[in-house]
Amino acid sequence: MAMPDSNSRTNLPRSTKTSRSSARRRGGRRKSAARRLRLIPLGGLGEIGKNMMALESGDDIVVIDAGLMFPGEDLLGVDLLIPDFTFLFENRDRVRGVVVTHGHEDHIGALPYLLQSLDVPVYASKLSARLIAIEVKQKSAKAKLDVREVTAGERITLGSLSIEFFAVCHSIPDAMGLIIHTPLGTVVHTGDFKLDHTPVIGQPTDLHSLALLGTRQVLLLMSDSTYVELPGYTPSERTVAESLERIISDAPGRVIVATFSSLVGRIQQVLDIAAKSKRSVLITGRSMEAIVKVASEAGYLRIPPKTLGKFEKIHNLPHDRVVILTTGTQGEPTSALVRMANREHPQVRIVPGDTVIMSATPIPGNDELVSRTIDNLFQLGANVVYGSMSRVHVHGHGSEEELKTILNLVRPKYFVPIHGEYRHLAKHAKLAAEMGVSLENIFVLRNGDVLELTETKGKVVGKVAAGGIVASGPMTGALDLNMLRDRRLLSRDGVVVVTVVFSAEDGMLIDEPLIVSKGFVDTRSNGEMIRGAQKAVLAAIGEGRHAPGDRARVETQAREALSKYFYSRTHRRPVVIPVIVGL
Amino acid sequence: MAMPDSNSRTNLPRSTKTSRSSARRRGGRRKSAARRLRLIPLGGLGEIGKNMMALESGDDIVVIDAGLMFPGEDLLGVDLLIPDFTFLFENRDRVRGVVVTHGHEDHIGALPYLLQSLDVPVYASKLSARLIAIEVKQKSAKAKLDVREVTAGERITLGSLSIEFFAVCHSIPDAMGLIIHTPLGTVVHTGDFKLDHTPVIGQPTDLHSLALLGTRQVLLLMSDSTYVELPGYTPSERTVAESLERIISDAPGRVIVATFSSLVGRIQQVLDIAAKSKRSVLITGRSMEAIVKVASEAGYLRIPPKTLGKFEKIHNLPHDRVVILTTGTQGEPTSALVRMANREHPQVRIVPGDTVIMSATPIPGNDELVSRTIDNLFQLGANVVYGSMSRVHVHGHGSEEELKTILNLVRPKYFVPIHGEYRHLAKHAKLAAEMGVSLENIFVLRNGDVLELTETKGKVVGKVAAGGIVASGPMTGALDLNMLRDRRLLSRDGVVVVTVVFSAEDGMLIDEPLIVSKGFVDTRSNGEMIRGAQKAVLAAIGEGRHAPGDRARVETQAREALSKYFYSRTHRRPVVIPVIVGL
Repeated sequence: MAMPDSNSRTNLPRSTKTSRSSARRRGGRRKSAARRLRLIPLGGLGEIGKNMMALESGDDIVVIDAGLMFPGEDLLGVDLLIPDFTFLFENRDRVRGVVVTHGHEDHIGALPYLLQSLDVPVYASKLSARLIAIEVKQKSAKAKLDVREVTAGERITLGSLSIEFFAVCHSIPDAMGLIIHTPLGTVVHTGDFKLDHTPVIGQPTDLHSLALLGTRQVLLLMSDSTYVELPGYTPSERTVAESLERIISDAPGRVIVATFSSLVGRIQQVLDIAAKSKRSVLITGRSMEAIVKVASEAGYLRIPPKTLGKFEKIHNLPHDRVVILTTGTQGEPTSALVRMANREHPQVRIVPGDTVIMSATPIPGNDELVSRTIDNLFQLGANVVYGSMSRVHVHGHGSEEELKTILNLVRPKYFVPIHGEYRHLAKHAKLAAEMGVSLENIFVLRNGDVLELTETKGKVVGKVAAGGIVASGPMTGALDLNMLRDRRLLSRDGVVVVTVVFSAEDGMLIDEPLIVSKGFVDTRSNGEMIRGAQKAVLAAIGEGRHAPGDRARVETQAREALSKYFYSRTHRRPVVIPVIVGL
Repeated sequence: MAMPDSNSRTNLPRSTKTSRSSARRRGGRRKSAARRLRLIPLGGLGEIGKNMMALESGDDIVVIDAGLMFPGEDLLGVDLLIPDFTFLFENRDRVRGVVVTHGHEDHIGALPYLLQSLDVPVYASKLSARLIAIEVKQKSAKAKLDVREVTAGERITLGSLSIEFFAVCHSIPDAMGLIIHTPLGTVVHTGDFKLDHTPVIGQPTDLHSLALLGTRQVLLLMSDSTYVELPGYTPSERTVAESLERIISDAPGRVIVATFSSLVGRIQQVLDIAAKSKRSVLITGRSMEAIVKVASEAGYLRIPPKTLGKFEKIHNLPHDRVVILTTGTQGEPTSALVRMANREHPQVRIVPGDTVIMSATPIPGNDELVSRTIDNLFQLGANVVYGSMSRVHVHGHGSEEELKTILNLVRPKYFVPIHGEYRHLAKHAKLAAEMGVSLENIFVLRNGDVLELTETKGKVVGKVAAGGIVASGPMTGALDLNMLRDRRLLSRDGVVVVTVVFSAEDGMLIDEPLIVSKGFVDTRSNGEMIRGAQKAVLAAIGEGRHAPGDRARVETQAREALSKYFYSRTHRRPVVIPVIVGL
């Protein structure tokens, strides 16, 4: 359960190692390097290439993003996963830097862990850089952060690679895509993007640069697949304004707007509408307070004069002069909105006349928590505005036609769909084929796959370690599947501990077996069943003399006897832990 | 943990009891009864009035449906919930019968449990009756089933109530709504319905009967709220045919169609299209096999000649001559489709060229399982057709305009939205108000609420027990919140058992504390931490002599010391179970 480091066992593909050393032996490294480029999504579980990628050109490795993964419900008790850094640590002398596309946690959240053991510069836009600094400060005292601000249009050189950043529009300001000039050719990485021509903050996606590139041969395009399933175009952030303005100005009482804290464009719109309708905006929730501070200091958020109010003075304001801005759109139990819904928020008690706007959609997996929050708010008398029909949210990724636009402008030789579950990548791959990319030049990768490209062809040549690593408080460690299996069993039917005590002197049983349970049945109100369980254990282990060597046998007998007995009585299978004393 | 029965403590509202006895005392029972009607949704957790309702008119109680609830993810280890029958058992001499609207499990699945202790007739349509017989046979040897088949248009008398059944169209054939004539007036209960004018099997919803009723005064309408959030009309089942036919006839290889087993109309369409495109249909999965047998025997499903093939002969058929019909659209781990996706199906191995049609939408809460299944199928090379854009599914509930149509035709005095989460009921209530029902005559109930209606007004006059009851193998019992809390804790960080053994003779500690864990850290590879834990326990309990009265104190000391120690070391909080021997 230790941080993987350069001493840990390698999972590198044979091909990578041998080609390196043989290249050295031949002394022809640069030349051979120029003829191949390697791409390795390192994200771990879930979406492919979402959280971290490595691009290897000869002697140089550039890391694109280093983000967290959010584990699904089946990873019981696992709060955070980070990518497996083994490949990077194994090749630490060749890693030239990390380039960051935008400041969402699933793209920057693993940096505090990575930078603990890898001393490389991080290139990021102004807002991303500030968010990275906060992340690193919160999570790791040991990480050495050397973050270098870059702006769209700027070009940096990392070894044999030259990287140009271009503006993309996403659900956080200051997002960028990458144009990477390699000895083999030009690589375009879109980052997360949509083609919003009228974003509320920042520039639209820089189609011009991409169009110019398309007139020359682009070697490889990697493009965001998240919303490939949606036909048409994603609406502009500005389309939300109309609904928000109508709802806020019509509301008879307070309006509570819940959204993602990183959706700074949405926050801007709420501030502007509130100012227009002469309402004060009160901000609740730590992450929302933090982002408003950072984004306004960095010049992204323009707070209209006299609009921000102080939460302590909320009781002095008439209800129809108040907008409360909060997080909690995903039903997160500790968020301000959920605390309001559960009547646990210290300052806000929901009353009839309140309007709650859910300015976000539930991320898959959160639906039940979100539904419950909405239900609870309705039960307290609030009018809750939610769902796609209410037009109070647009998402941050390009839909099918936008993805086609990019493919059409860039016209790459090779195509690798990124950022999505396997089905999204498969669909995006199909789209690329329809748009004219040759089938044999399209690669749907899995995390850990090593894709090697030459001028003439591409091939997956190996696999590196890319499992999710559990980050839990101060410890990190590989996902322990046995532990997860035990937790799953414990969560279904609880645990029964049976203690059997033998006399150290004569090996005879002392007293009845002791049976304690948690999460199974209430042992106090099921005395008859517990007595039956004690009898079953006694019958299984026998009442005679036992010797120290019998311990393992007695353990097995007690466990099996109890499992069988409880299943016959309850049709449940609690985890049985036998504790044998005196043998 | 026993079945609630007539001896269990009552939760009846004071008003119900007193009004009954005072009515008897006055000898004016019938007359006073005629002046009031009571409605009690008894469904337990989740949707309101979905699973079971009681209608009480004077001396007579009629039960509408008796279904299962499917517990959410937060009810760890709870597979099935049934409604709390306490109210019915307390009033068993007045329960005249159960009327069933349709044969879905969430409307009939609790009958085996109810009929174990309540000997009343059940009225149901032919298909529903056969499904009920199967349910009861599978789940309860003790239940006495007296099921009486009724058809749409038929009228039965239960005490002072006369009940007319009318045809409704839903995602299972032979569904019915209820027109209940009571001394106080007429009550309409829609059941689950949509207004499909061209259903594939059976009759469209009987708007004519409802329209006629609307010309007289209807006292109360209870109407399905499930899809109130969807604007417009739900498309007809027939609209699915076009997409299915196109996909099946274009498919280069096998087509695997997954749908709900109770969606007999969909099964009919698949059979018809397969016959037309000269493909054999092979059926896999127990519930799918069972429904095809029952529905064809009962005359609902018309199997085209020579269309059904035998699974054993699947390897003799060319791939483009095969359709496989299966369940598994919800990602259920034991379903045939998921076993195919996981390469665990004994007869079907997915290969490139296979087409899988997901002819259903994920029920909220199942999204992750469904996504994973689709991903796995794609990875095996199948083309998976899914999602609303593919038009291979329509659902079985009326959308907003259909709900308005019913309100407009029936024009009730009182309105109670049923079947939905609180937010759906709130929205349906708003719709009813917009359609002209007086606000004070609209009641958004919670399960257990006792709504009393008179000619002039309605009021919630009390509350009866309506919590979900856990049905688990042979045992049923109230939801134990402490047990669920323990399971949640166990599922997050596992369990640690610490055994401390004292000498019975001198009260001195024998040996080091013994520490065993499950689902926490691997105790074998963390010897140093375990030794630290032993030391922490020793320091807390002290090494001196202990007397029998010290047991509780030692338990607490050991638990607290270990919790604190493990939190400081791992930032995790395993459940600590202390076992003290010899005190």
